[in-house]
Amino acid sequence: MLKKLFAEFFGTFWLVFGGCGSALFAAGVPNTGIGLLGVALAFGLTVLTMVYAVGHISGGHFNPAVSVGLMIGGRFPAKDLIPYIIAQLVGAIAAAGCLYIILNGAGAFSKEGAGAFATNFYDLPGYNNRSFSVGAAFLAEFLLTAFFLIVIMGATDKWANGKFAGIAIGLCLTLIHLISIPITNTSVNPARSTSQALFVGGTALSQLWLFWLAPILGGAVGGAIYKLLLQKDQNA
Amino acid sequence: MLKKLFAEFFGTFWLVFGGCGSALFAAGVPNTGIGLLGVALAFGLTVLTMVYAVGHISGGHFNPAVSVGLMIGGRFPAKDLIPYIIAQLVGAIAAAGCLYIILNGAGAFSKEGAGAFATNFYDLPGYNNRSFSVGAAFLAEFLLTAFFLIVIMGATDKWANGKFAGIAIGLCLTLIHLISIPITNTSVNPARSTSQALFVGGTALSQLWLFWLAPILGGAVGGAIYKLLLQKDQNA
Amino acid sequence: MLKKLFAEFFGTFWLVFGGCGSALFAAGVPNTGIGLLGVALAFGLTVLTMVYAVGHISGGHFNPAVSVGLMIGGRFPAKDLIPYIIAQLVGAIAAAGCLYIILNGAGAFSKEGAGAFATNFYDLPGYNNRSFSVGAAFLAEFLLTAFFLIVIMGATDKWANGKFAGIAIGLCLTLIHLISIPITNTSVNPARSTSQALFVGGTALSQLWLFWLAPILGGAVGGAIYKLLLQKDQNA
Amino acid sequence: MLKKLFAEFFGTFWLVFGGCGSALFAAGVPNTGIGLLGVALAFGLTVLTMVYAVGHISGGHFNPAVSVGLMIGGRFPAKDLIPYIIAQLVGAIAAAGCLYIILNGAGAFSKEGAGAFATNFYDLPGYNNRSFSVGAAFLAEFLLTAFFLIVIMGATDKWANGKFAGIAIGLCLTLIHLISIPITNTSVNPARSTSQALFVGGTALSQLWLFWLAPILGGAVGGAIYKLLLQKDQNA
Repeated sequence: MLKKLFAEFFGTFWLVFGGCGSALFAAGVPNTGIGLLGVALAFGLTVLTMVYAVGHISGGHFNPAVSVGLMIGGRFPAKDLIPYIIAQLVGAIAAAGCLYIILNGAGAFSKEGAGAFATNFYDLPGYNNRSFSVGAAFLAEFLLTAFFLIVIMGATDKWANGKFAGIAIGLCLTLIHLISIPITNTSVNPARSTSQALFVGGTALSQLWLFWLAPILGGAVGGAIYKLLLQKDQNA
Repeated sequence: MLKKLFAEFFGTFWLVFGGCGSALFAAGVPNTGIGLLGVALAFGLTVLTMVYAVGHISGGHFNPAVSVGLMIGGRFPAKDLIPYIIAQLVGAIAAAGCLYIILNGAGAFSKEGAGAFATNFYDLPGYNNRSFSVGAAFLAEFLLTAFFLIVIMGATDKWANGKFAGIAIGLCLTLIHLISIPITNTSVNPARSTSQALFVGGTALSQLWLFWLAPILGGAVGGAIYKLLLQKDQNA
Repeated sequence: MLKKLFAEFFGTFWLVFGGCGSALFAAGVPNTGIGLLGVALAFGLTVLTMVYAVGHISGGHFNPAVSVGLMIGGRFPAKDLIPYIIAQLVGAIAAAGCLYIILNGAGAFSKEGAGAFATNFYDLPGYNNRSFSVGAAFLAEFLLTAFFLIVIMGATDKWANGKFAGIAIGLCLTLIHLISIPITNTSVNPARSTSQALFVGGTALSQLWLFWLAPILGGAVGGAIYKLLLQKDQNA
Repeated sequence: MLKKLFAEFFGTFWLVFGGCGSALFAAGVPNTGIGLLGVALAFGLTVLTMVYAVGHISGGHFNPAVSVGLMIGGRFPAKDLIPYIIAQLVGAIAAAGCLYIILNGAGAFSKEGAGAFATNFYDLPGYNNRSFSVGAAFLAEFLLTAFFLIVIMGATDKWANGKFAGIAIGLCLTLIHLISIPITNTSVNPARSTSQALFVGGTALSQLWLFWLAPILGGAVGGAIYKLLLQKDQNA
């Protein structure tokens, strides 16, 4: 079990360090910056790389909403849920700390503006100066996490082409970010939202509830949809 | 059969929600927007992820032109064609509805201009202010769908390296978008064209015929080319 | 043999239609254009998709320099070389014809400027207003084709992880374009250079010799390097 | 052994020629340049392609920090370390020489400014005009190389899905560049730093110590973390 928790710790560290780090250091560089496309790719690659690196140890969740969805879908034992979520949170927070230190090493840490320090948000003027209502933000996070779990459940199904699951799941997270960074800065992962909000406080903390509730509800529904509507008999 | 139709429903929902959604939310963000490259990647990843997730259930068409092409190519039974197309259309329209709700949550839905709400079009000043004639648009949609089917038929051939088909087919759709978004906003998929046109009406609806006719004709020709000119004896 | 030539015809058509097409239609769209990164991805994906689609039929060369390199490397019989090259040239020219028709459908065909209609060039002010000398252009094309063949020979070696060859080879072509579009508009493929030069004439035709000589020499050297310096005993 | 050293020579040549080359030729082209995202992709694809091409010969390190990390992790014999590092350095320097010749063929070689000729740097105003302190640069290079080794050790573990290691490792290098080009121009590879610094001299040479120390320390720690905290019993 300890090796599993280490795997979730390092995997979630990498997700936050790589995903949020690419946003903080490289997205907005003038002319040659990686933009939202680069950030979307980075988030997906953190998961793709870590699924192939430690997926054989812990299953490679790196996300409380994924752990909950897999539990509902019948693929993850309930007794492991809380330890997994704690390891994920500790990994995310450690990564945010390292990002804080490095960013501060250029005097560039800031708490100002929607999405500061790669936090998630709703109902604030963000990209394109668009402000998505709390309902629109909730629907987006719910739907995206539900489909994330459908892809995860399906790609790791014993009837599926399972060796490619790391590619499908990692690139699914890229896809999710391609759609929704301008909506909420994309969470679908309460651990990633929590670590960034803790360093910024204020609105980021007071809006954190949505980035626990919508992804976990979406993950649970996605896990249930796959199990009930799509999954073939596992005993055949 | 019901599981197959659910798979086509969710897969086509994801294709429209992810592909058109990335275009509507993220393509045009100033400076850091994902652009047409990001949209092309998003469309491809919807198919890549869903082929690995539910391809083992329904075959993973998500597109009436693909179903027709596979039928002509001898890989899909004619009796399943209509149910598949209905499931695809319902999935596409449900996704467009969700996109409408979320976009409206930022007051950003619009019917104005060529390609509004990610609709397909021809003979209108679009990207680069270029206006492609109906003949050029038809030829592009026809050729691209024909090659899409050659790739699908080939990558899933029993003599081929079939476990990689999801990667080849998904990234083929990315490639198709890299070429042709500036020509027609890229259809090659009548379901994706229909769902968006229904919400916009007007010219989008009156031009919809081309985005059924050209992809379906192209798909049928592509399926036939592979079967007649390229395919080895399947009984060997 | 006929099926092999059809495979090379369709594969090379796709390479030129997709690679040059993405450059002509989508690279320069203001603000959201796919840029050189998108074109590089498109060229690579034409090969990746067609290797998985028809690689099991013809080997998936789509390029006279690849056919020569594989012949020198001992992987392709000399008697098939000329038919393969003819099929590749015919496919490339047919694709350029389709690109010409579609581009003309928006009144956008032009012969002006270095790299018009996606032709290759040297010693002319191109991207960044840099003008690379004939020697620099030759060295770049030579080295890139040599390494392309090392990757092809290695990834398809019987000792290698051969099922991934389509990914490695396709993305190697993407990488080659990421490096060298600003140098020569990237050839490494005499068929692709010839088809575009035929429609433009003038300087494009008079510079065509380099885009046969350097890639074929590079391909031959790359094939020889792998065979002599890297390849393990194939009979072990 | 000679074939192994040739493999490391060609692989590291390709890493420097493709990664640094894409930065020098294509990153900064106005409007259509590939930007930092394209450079990140190029670095990753050099490794992805060469792992599938020659990984079966030498293991595919192409990086002294990787060789050290694998030695500490118990996967690489100490007696091969020095020959591998020499082959890597010679390959990197040869590639830098070719880049110098080609760049000079357009009169575009320059030693001015932080990151000239794709050198690594710290504590200088670079991208975004941010100047990262020596401590921040060291921490970034250390952490990124440590996670690189965790991914390499994990993806090639006998319990893992090892055929995908080339994809995971190559795209991990892409991810590392997506995060850190704006911090140090990204090293995580002393050979790549050395070759570029030799041609530029001055500050690039005097700062070279960090790009040996931090990656090698990080690689060693990453190898040790995987071996001690994550790896299952290899004899089971």
